[in-house]
Amino acid sequence: MMEKPSAQVAGRAFVRHYYTVLYKEPENLHSFYGKDSLYVHGGLVSNGRSEIQKRVTELSLRDCNTRIRHMDARFTLSKGIVVQVMGEQAHVIVKHSSLCCSGHIFQLATDT
Amino acid sequence: MMEKPSAQVAGRAFVRHYYTVLYKEPENLHSFYGKDSLYVHGGLVSNGRSEIQKRVTELSLRDCNTRIRHMDARFTLSKGIVVQVMGEQAHVIVKHSSLCCSGHIFQLATDT
Repeated sequence: MMEKPSAQVAGRAFVRHYYTVLYKEPENLHSFYGKDSLYVHGGLVSNGRSEIQKRVTELSLRDCNTRIRHMDARFTLSKGIVVQVMGEQAHVIVKHSSLCCSGHIFQLATDT
Repeated sequence: MMEKPSAQVAGRAFVRHYYTVLYKEPENLHSFYGKDSLYVHGGLVSNGRSEIQKRVTELSLRDCNTRIRHMDARFTLSKGIVVQVMGEQAHVIVKHSSLCCSGHIFQLATDT
């Protein structure tokens, strides 16, 4: 009979899987979430898998590469696992800005 | 009399200044924007300097390091400048996730 993996082992496997999908196939990231899941990104809360899928698509997460510096995982009383990840994330940016002249200085008119 | 700088020179000076402030003092990033400016981040539009300041604070842009790969700038007919920047952005992440057991698989319950 297989032994139950420790929280650290299960957490590490999850984190590896999650950030690989985020990098290689972000269009499938929503598969980690269920109908009652909460996803918070950039101060915006998305609720449930389909809303999360919409949000992830909107974020255009391309080539989002994560370097994990620290990972910690613990079992909860309700048989879940809480995972904390600290690290750095790098991604491609394409920004279009328009500057307008206001007096003697330039100001950003639009920044997308 | 000083010659008017080319769009490339002005654009490059702006881009260098903007991304230095973003990295070193993100709490002052709103100073690049005016009362009618539009700022779009993560699919969310903020309008005007105070709303942009609130949004930037909310985003907690810490140690956000940008590597510019390509920069292009053009004057517009209305004496503004449009700037396009392509590159990579790296930032620190601290994520707290809770996984719950759904049947034989773990799903993300909350992900912040």
